[in-house]
Amino acid sequence: PAFQVQAILLIMRPDDANVAGNVHGGTILKMIEEAGAIISTRHCNSQNGERCVAALARVERTDFLSPMCIGEVAHVSAEITYTSKHSVEVQVNVMSENILTGAKKLTNKATLWYVPLSLKNVDKVLEVPPVVYSRQEQEEEGRKRYEAQKLERMETKWRNGDIVQPVLNPEPNTVSYSQSSLIHLVGPSDCTLHGFVHGGVTMKLMDEVAGIVAARHCKTNIVTASVDAINFHDKIRKGCVITISGRMTFTSNKSMEIEVLVDADPVVDSSQKRYRAASAFFTYVSLSQEGRSLPVPQLVPETEDEKKRFEEGKGRYLQMKAKRQGHTEPQP
Amino acid sequence: PAFQVQAILLIMRPDDANVAGNVHGGTILKMIEEAGAIISTRHCNSQNGERCVAALARVERTDFLSPMCIGEVAHVSAEITYTSKHSVEVQVNVMSENILTGAKKLTNKATLWYVPLSLKNVDKVLEVPPVVYSRQEQEEEGRKRYEAQKLERMETKWRNGDIVQPVLNPEPNTVSYSQSSLIHLVGPSDCTLHGFVHGGVTMKLMDEVAGIVAARHCKTNIVTASVDAINFHDKIRKGCVITISGRMTFTSNKSMEIEVLVDADPVVDSSQKRYRAASAFFTYVSLSQEGRSLPVPQLVPETEDEKKRFEEGKGRYLQMKAKRQGHTEPQP
Amino acid sequence: PAFQVQAILLIMRPDDANVAGNVHGGTILKMIEEAGAIISTRHCNSQNGERCVAALARVERTDFLSPMCIGEVAHVSAEITYTSKHSVEVQVNVMSENILTGAKKLTNKATLWYVPLSLKNVDKVLEVPPVVYSRQEQEEEGRKRYEAQKLERMETKWRNGDIVQPVLNPEPNTVSYSQSSLIHLVGPSDCTLHGFVHGGVTMKLMDEVAGIVAARHCKTNIVTASVDAINFHDKIRKGCVITISGRMTFTSNKSMEIEVLVDADPVVDSSQKRYRAASAFFTYVSLSQEGRSLPVPQLVPETEDEKKRFEEGKGRYLQMKAKRQGHTEPQP
Repeated sequence: PAFQVQAILLIMRPDDANVAGNVHGGTILKMIEEAGAIISTRHCNSQNGERCVAALARVERTDFLSPMCIGEVAHVSAEITYTSKHSVEVQVNVMSENILTGAKKLTNKATLWYVPLSLKNVDKVLEVPPVVYSRQEQEEEGRKRYEAQKLERMETKWRNGDIVQPVLNPEPNTVSYSQSSLIHLVGPSDCTLHGFVHGGVTMKLMDEVAGIVAARHCKTNIVTASVDAINFHDKIRKGCVITISGRMTFTSNKSMEIEVLVDADPVVDSSQKRYRAASAFFTYVSLSQEGRSLPVPQLVPETEDEKKRFEEGKGRYLQMKAKRQGHTEPQP
Repeated sequence: PAFQVQAILLIMRPDDANVAGNVHGGTILKMIEEAGAIISTRHCNSQNGERCVAALARVERTDFLSPMCIGEVAHVSAEITYTSKHSVEVQVNVMSENILTGAKKLTNKATLWYVPLSLKNVDKVLEVPPVVYSRQEQEEEGRKRYEAQKLERMETKWRNGDIVQPVLNPEPNTVSYSQSSLIHLVGPSDCTLHGFVHGGVTMKLMDEVAGIVAARHCKTNIVTASVDAINFHDKIRKGCVITISGRMTFTSNKSMEIEVLVDADPVVDSSQKRYRAASAFFTYVSLSQEGRSLPVPQLVPETEDEKKRFEEGKGRYLQMKAKRQGHTEPQP
Repeated sequence: PAFQVQAILLIMRPDDANVAGNVHGGTILKMIEEAGAIISTRHCNSQNGERCVAALARVERTDFLSPMCIGEVAHVSAEITYTSKHSVEVQVNVMSENILTGAKKLTNKATLWYVPLSLKNVDKVLEVPPVVYSRQEQEEEGRKRYEAQKLERMETKWRNGDIVQPVLNPEPNTVSYSQSSLIHLVGPSDCTLHGFVHGGVTMKLMDEVAGIVAARHCKTNIVTASVDAINFHDKIRKGCVITISGRMTFTSNKSMEIEVLVDADPVVDSSQKRYRAASAFFTYVSLSQEGRSLPVPQLVPETEDEKKRFEEGKGRYLQMKAKRQGHTEPQP
């Protein structure tokens, strides 16, 4: 089968947005993942053979290019851009459409990797039918992206990080002051039909915690500016309790970086230990009531670990800045 | 058992309504169907015998008589008005109640048909216990309604219609300009306990797409004025992807008719083909900020098919207008 | 294991609140129960042995100490304070946090009792691993609370109450005028993984009905002030229809007491009869637009039953008032 394209349209509701009317980054990430899951599950079942469901393995770094508001229509389209033996790369674009003015804006471009799991045994990865490329170079470019993400996934697999611990009476602007944890009991509506949590549900919760950390730190209206690559190390099964913890790692003049850790705890099955299911860095910016970007109170790292994380965050920030200045391509 | 009556009360929330505070027609259709499903499932299980669940087969044409707003209480009552050997007719009334002023208004009157499916095998239709009528004529009148809808269902079974195809750079006011498709992965919370989608969930999605088409066409606040009869040709099972497509077929001076097609695609089961699950015509009107009905930009049909559909729509419009002028009964 | 503490953080959304922006008492009760269910399920599975899920058996009387608003973060923490052989006592505190100002307020303190049900057979109650107390007196104090609630549960088990019947054209300020019933078909997202309804879902519906009764009676903005002890007599299983009925029982100068009855009806299983699953008294107050407490129109009891219930309500009201004046401890 050739490249497949599909679109999801959704009207943004008050519950999808913050009090200023901006749709949460997490709501957008959830829609992106739903589109990716549909197109890759459909592709992986396009040939006769064992039936499967596509599980999210990784989301590449994505920027939130323009805000989406309540009442606008989100237009999510997905395309399969590469297949390896056991994985599918999906490119997803999100446009916001103001149906009253007809104005459309590109909100997000995201790249997701899925692996097909057998319906009979969700621990078994099946083979992916090859996609047909319209240009020869596409396969070669895709293979490069595949190898690059594979390498990075292996590297981050062991970057486990410690657990976020509560601190009594923290000072303003410290890491402890704004750090936050959210506990969620996984229910039926969070899960695929095969009993594990949709990647998009996890990302929505991650963004929610990051947003609480950012708002606690700067006490203004805040919005998601970008999310770095998220690797899903392991499935989160039905009946788990998940703890999503966020702590601020770095502040630039006008942005905040928040590390979010997702740990799954199989409450009713004591033979299984608590495990790190995913982790990512979210970047938030602070907005004035008119929607203009505001300076951010500077984070005060206290412990050695906090200082180390601050320097690492600065490194990521400077690297992205350099990358952006190098690639000054016009937006499509 | 005699006629059964029951009531559902629900407070309307911001997420149930558009930005102007009017509750979506789809939210009301979903409540109507929930009431119908409860009363008919209860009735069909009222005698000892094989346990069953009532599945929606058809909704008769219904008008939205007055708007419902956020904060109002929806009062939904249902009554069984006829039973054939294998189907149940339910009459549902919806009132909106402003609990601060105590004012109540009739919002909808709807007639729904259900068939009881065996819990052991949802492809098997069971027999319906007969309802007891208080007046002899009720049975005879019900039989006539039953025969009339049976005839119409058979006629529309083969009216399949083509698929809505995207068009590049369409002109304003054309069919292509406002046509819209929504893709939805059926999840556990969309389904009955027996793994098929609630009729009300499908109707809510249909209204959502029709609303996007109407808003794109006239770029104002729009509301559902009526829905013609909807036939549910086949169950939509858990794990399907459904595509709901809408295209404008006709505009009168102050109303727009939108055809909505629902196709189900059993993604993980390639032995089953995509099939048309339901279709219907929604009529929308455009409202000013003060809630007064506005003139609608006239639709410009381009292709032969679009011109044919426009004429058919005009026929339905004139027929309904004549019917309304013939029956100038006072509203209850 | 020692005392366990955990926290749930949630941003309050428009759908969680009434039109005046106050979060519904029912939303708060649902969060409280979710925290209680997680901590007690985790505790009951902390030793090797048969796996189980904790089911809510009782919630002690709880006051809503200060309002929570849209955009605020709810901070829910839970602690196990006592274990008997077959039950767990959990203390839950709710704080509201205005993340823009950093202000925190205590909203609720609640005590919940859970029993562990076997995953293999949810009709079998398992044993609870003992909790370790830091002070000797804690065990003795807990035992007293355990005995007191056990006694009260037995007493109320047989207080079944009649069913709320609709009345035609009732006069304002009578019981019949404001009484309300809500019917709900239990769906997958209402339930635990083991097929019965979360206690928190039931409490949210109970508060919703009580709120409709209160608003119909006084036609102003109303908020939950307190809920008396709720006993959960029996599990409500998936596929039931539940009827939640509310009627006003008593009015003081500035408060209204509403009795809420929950009846479960196993629609598809006619061998099982409709049964009373829970009941409770909710106290509501009426608020002006500035949030100040308003006088309440006096309830006019008509029948002998209504007069008897009014006197009983007055008794509860005077008892609570005396209790409050006796315990004038400063709030933490």
